[in-house]
Amino acid sequence: MIHVSLQRLVLKNEVNYIISQITGLINTPVFIQDAEGMALFGEIDQYQPFRYPVEIDNKTIGWVGGGEQAAVLASLLSCLAKQELEKKSIGREALEKYKEITLLYDLAEKLTASLDTAEVAQLVIDEAKTLIAADNNSVMLVNEETGMLEVIASSGKELHPGEGLKNGTGIAGSVVLTGRAEIVNDIPSDKRYVPGAVRVSSLMCAPLKIKDRVIGVIYISSEDPVQYTAEDLKLLSAIAFQAAADIENARLYDSLKETFLTTVYTLAETIEKRDPYTGGHTKRVMNYSIAIGKVLGLSDTEIGRLELAAMLHDIGKIGIKDRILLKKGKLTPFEFAEIKMHPIYAEEILNHIKHLRDIVPAVKHHHERYDGCGYPEKLRGDGIDIKARIIAVADAFDAMTTDRPYRKAMSLQIALEELWANSGTQFDPEVVRAFFEAFEKDELLVKKGW
Amino acid sequence: MIHVSLQRLVLKNEVNYIISQITGLINTPVFIQDAEGMALFGEIDQYQPFRYPVEIDNKTIGWVGGGEQAAVLASLLSCLAKQELEKKSIGREALEKYKEITLLYDLAEKLTASLDTAEVAQLVIDEAKTLIAADNNSVMLVNEETGMLEVIASSGKELHPGEGLKNGTGIAGSVVLTGRAEIVNDIPSDKRYVPGAVRVSSLMCAPLKIKDRVIGVIYISSEDPVQYTAEDLKLLSAIAFQAAADIENARLYDSLKETFLTTVYTLAETIEKRDPYTGGHTKRVMNYSIAIGKVLGLSDTEIGRLELAAMLHDIGKIGIKDRILLKKGKLTPFEFAEIKMHPIYAEEILNHIKHLRDIVPAVKHHHERYDGCGYPEKLRGDGIDIKARIIAVADAFDAMTTDRPYRKAMSLQIALEELWANSGTQFDPEVVRAFFEAFEKDELLVKKGW
Ligand SMILES: [Fe+2]
Ligand SMILES: [Fe+2]
Repeated sequence: MIHVSLQRLVLKNEVNYIISQITGLINTPVFIQDAEGMALFGEIDQYQPFRYPVEIDNKTIGWVGGGEQAAVLASLLSCLAKQELEKKSIGREALEKYKEITLLYDLAEKLTASLDTAEVAQLVIDEAKTLIAADNNSVMLVNEETGMLEVIASSGKELHPGEGLKNGTGIAGSVVLTGRAEIVNDIPSDKRYVPGAVRVSSLMCAPLKIKDRVIGVIYISSEDPVQYTAEDLKLLSAIAFQAAADIENARLYDSLKETFLTTVYTLAETIEKRDPYTGGHTKRVMNYSIAIGKVLGLSDTEIGRLELAAMLHDIGKIGIKDRILLKKGKLTPFEFAEIKMHPIYAEEILNHIKHLRDIVPAVKHHHERYDGCGYPEKLRGDGIDIKARIIAVADAFDAMTTDRPYRKAMSLQIALEELWANSGTQFDPEVVRAFFEAFEKDELLVKKGW
Repeated sequence: MIHVSLQRLVLKNEVNYIISQITGLINTPVFIQDAEGMALFGEIDQYQPFRYPVEIDNKTIGWVGGGEQAAVLASLLSCLAKQELEKKSIGREALEKYKEITLLYDLAEKLTASLDTAEVAQLVIDEAKTLIAADNNSVMLVNEETGMLEVIASSGKELHPGEGLKNGTGIAGSVVLTGRAEIVNDIPSDKRYVPGAVRVSSLMCAPLKIKDRVIGVIYISSEDPVQYTAEDLKLLSAIAFQAAADIENARLYDSLKETFLTTVYTLAETIEKRDPYTGGHTKRVMNYSIAIGKVLGLSDTEIGRLELAAMLHDIGKIGIKDRILLKKGKLTPFEFAEIKMHPIYAEEILNHIKHLRDIVPAVKHHHERYDGCGYPEKLRGDGIDIKARIIAVADAFDAMTTDRPYRKAMSLQIALEELWANSGTQFDPEVVRAFFEAFEKDELLVKKGW
């Protein structure tokens, strides 16, 4: 509610001046008092015959007392008070709109930071938290395959990423169905409520909509009873409105990225499968490489490239004939020279793909040696791309620990000793050290069967 | 500018009532007139000794004439006029904010429709056109590789998609460098202006910004001289603000999609290259298939799937040994049975990729025959996925028109006759008809060397 104070009005310079001038025209003393009877102008005189109310929206906010002529002052003050009220209410409306714009701009700016669904959802939650008091916040999205409403990001104890609600159940599920935001301030009495790990008393839930399609909800709840207002819900709905498109875009991007990585991986693995003895090699080299890269503190971008490079490291073998690639006996020098071409073939293939050019060094040089005796370019030391040095260790370790046509797998212990023995000659000692650190931390996902 | 009319003020019921009451208190006649001298209250009496101005922001909007006591009315009217002005200006501010919010919501809703850069840019232009009068509109984006500012979408005759400005040149280039929106209402006198195909007189240009990075501009221009206002520029900047993120997201999505398609294509082609006689086969089958699909009126989604399926149609050949795949002589029945496994191998590979499962039927059945005598499942007629029926025609036509180890390529005419002869038996007659239509329209990109 907006209030107009008669005291403040009367004290305004210009108003006070006009009151003085008018009282000068009136032949009897005049006084003004507020609704509580406090004098605001002149001296209160119980014996004056007339009292006129100063009214605003039929509510009396004060009185003008005096002779009959005092009526003009009451009319004037009522008129000025009404103007004041109108000004204030327009002002409040402008302020609200202003706040809403600021919120929209703010959110738009923050949410563009990312095309990662979980990250965008987390930003939405962070924003909701700064604007509305709540113990639990979450963004839940409809998984179109399973129909489940899944928690993508959360804060508080009630819900956690990975948890989900069955299609249409709970208050959140009901909001998905109706597409309408809801406040429930007395949760225990709501029949739709599905009790969870934490007892909550009040909640608000707003749908995330793309056109008329509901893709999920923003959900916030309070453990202590609070009265969420229509104003709070409007704020949450504005957040939901602005966030829905960003979340959907992130989800589409994530999905395309997954398709891309799965396709490349599947094709790489298919190419690898020409040689049945290396089954699962690609997957393991990827895992080892990423674990080592993380110990070495590579950036997320570099880890992403490392993953792709490890996936594609032997892609060049597609260019080598079965007769050589699958030969069971010892290779002739000529045949071995042909095998050594596979990093060059890989380079030729990857150079066709603009956005994969930055992984070429990692793939091309995975058979270089730290001491400069490798192939195809006899690079040495730090001259070899760090990702290639990592893949070299991962590749060698996997080759030693799996069966090959011409020999059985080494024991894990012997393979580890072998890495150690070749550290500083074949392998970068820093990378070998990181490999052992990852191994100790159980991050290599190898069976320690010894 | 906001105006307050003294006439309207004096005519307000409540104000008129107060004026009457006050004039009743004054012992000489009183009149009110506006700045032009028109009587608004009472009768104008030239012989009254005093005239008091009714002022607002030091501007006289009228006069109160009468005896000395008339001064109180002038003060009162000035005070009421000031209130009125304040109310109006707050109201205008509220209205502007309201318009801005509506614009932001509107745009947000429209732009989420798409993750295609050109489409999003076109939506931005359509929106700008409805809000600001202009002859030419365009969205230009910085190509980070070339540094060029490229036209992505446009309306009007000045600029066209594909055209571009060199880094930093022109007024648009200058907006990219400074990151500040500009109005130029007298273009010929601006030294930065680079004259183009159409003579323009006035323009506005607003940067598309992601955080502090300028990714491009929205540019509008008018051929006849107009005075674009700060208000217009604010509107254009609001559009630019809301659109920047959507455009950037679309661009990232497009770029990932291109990487995905190029990678899959390159790997498919690499796999194809094991057989040096089929060089370029994948590319040609894709082109023929898409051209046929378009004639048949397939949806964009189906064309997208057809493209991928054509790209991957022989991916299963990776599972076939060189000895059989590359054999120069006649294949034994056993060897031919092995070759016939390639669609099954393809199915096994693609089933690993969730988002590619919808192209499995198109790939798996590209060797089925319309009469049910094909492989691997002897499907017939409409029981065969339409995309597989299309690829079958494209694949056969390319096989006939390129050299193979065991025979030279047929002439184009004989190949066409062959397709025709097998229409309704091997091939779907509708697809063959569409193939000929595309061929006639020159959409198959084949050399008509006869
Ligand atoms: Fe290798
Ligand atoms: Fe085939």
